[in-house]
Amino acid sequence: MNKKENDEISKDNVVFVGRKSTMAYVLAVVTQMNQGVDEVIVKARGKAISKAVDVAEIVRNKFVSDAKIDDIKISTEEVTSEDGKQLKVSAIEIKLKK
Amino acid sequence: MNKKENDEISKDNVVFVGRKSTMAYVLAVVTQMNQGVDEVIVKARGKAISKAVDVAEIVRNKFVSDAKIDDIKISTEEVTSEDGKQLKVSAIEIKLKK
Repeated sequence: MNKKENDEISKDNVVFVGRKSTMAYVLAVVTQMNQGVDEVIVKARGKAISKAVDVAEIVRNKFVSDAKIDDIKISTEEVTSEDGKQLKVSAIEIKLKK
Repeated sequence: MNKKENDEISKDNVVFVGRKSTMAYVLAVVTQMNQGVDEVIVKARGKAISKAVDVAEIVRNKFVSDAKIDDIKISTEEVTSEDGKQLKVSAIEIKLKK
């Protein structure tokens, strides 16, 4: 596995949305779908949730017209902040399927 | 109808999440549910989407323990910016039901 850069944002059929540009994650999803993966899950936490919704909508409307939103889940996760505090943060999982 | 302040963020069983604090919207949802509304839809666009997810999770986990996420929809809406341009913006609708 030499695809280090891709591995940072995607693993198996999951794309983790974070601080990179929206289009970086759109590309990660589209690449997986073009390689034959029929189901990709877009995940994000906190403020990146809005970006994850943008990613799913752009993939569906502009790149993979036969992709549908199959399921959306929201949840609360516990994370440990840099100074060791336990924080609760909202999370989303958007399943795209074609 | 003298509830002007409440009308800004809630109409019927819909709460529009925008620039106010997360807790303002949590309170709007909880108030409706305590008044006997069994189904409240939390809506948001753009960057407020993350806050809408926070609102739904906080209502469910801290205030109305019998409320469930009944449905989540995402979509793309066209809005006109202040300088007259047509912009596309992602939107979310989270249906809370008890």
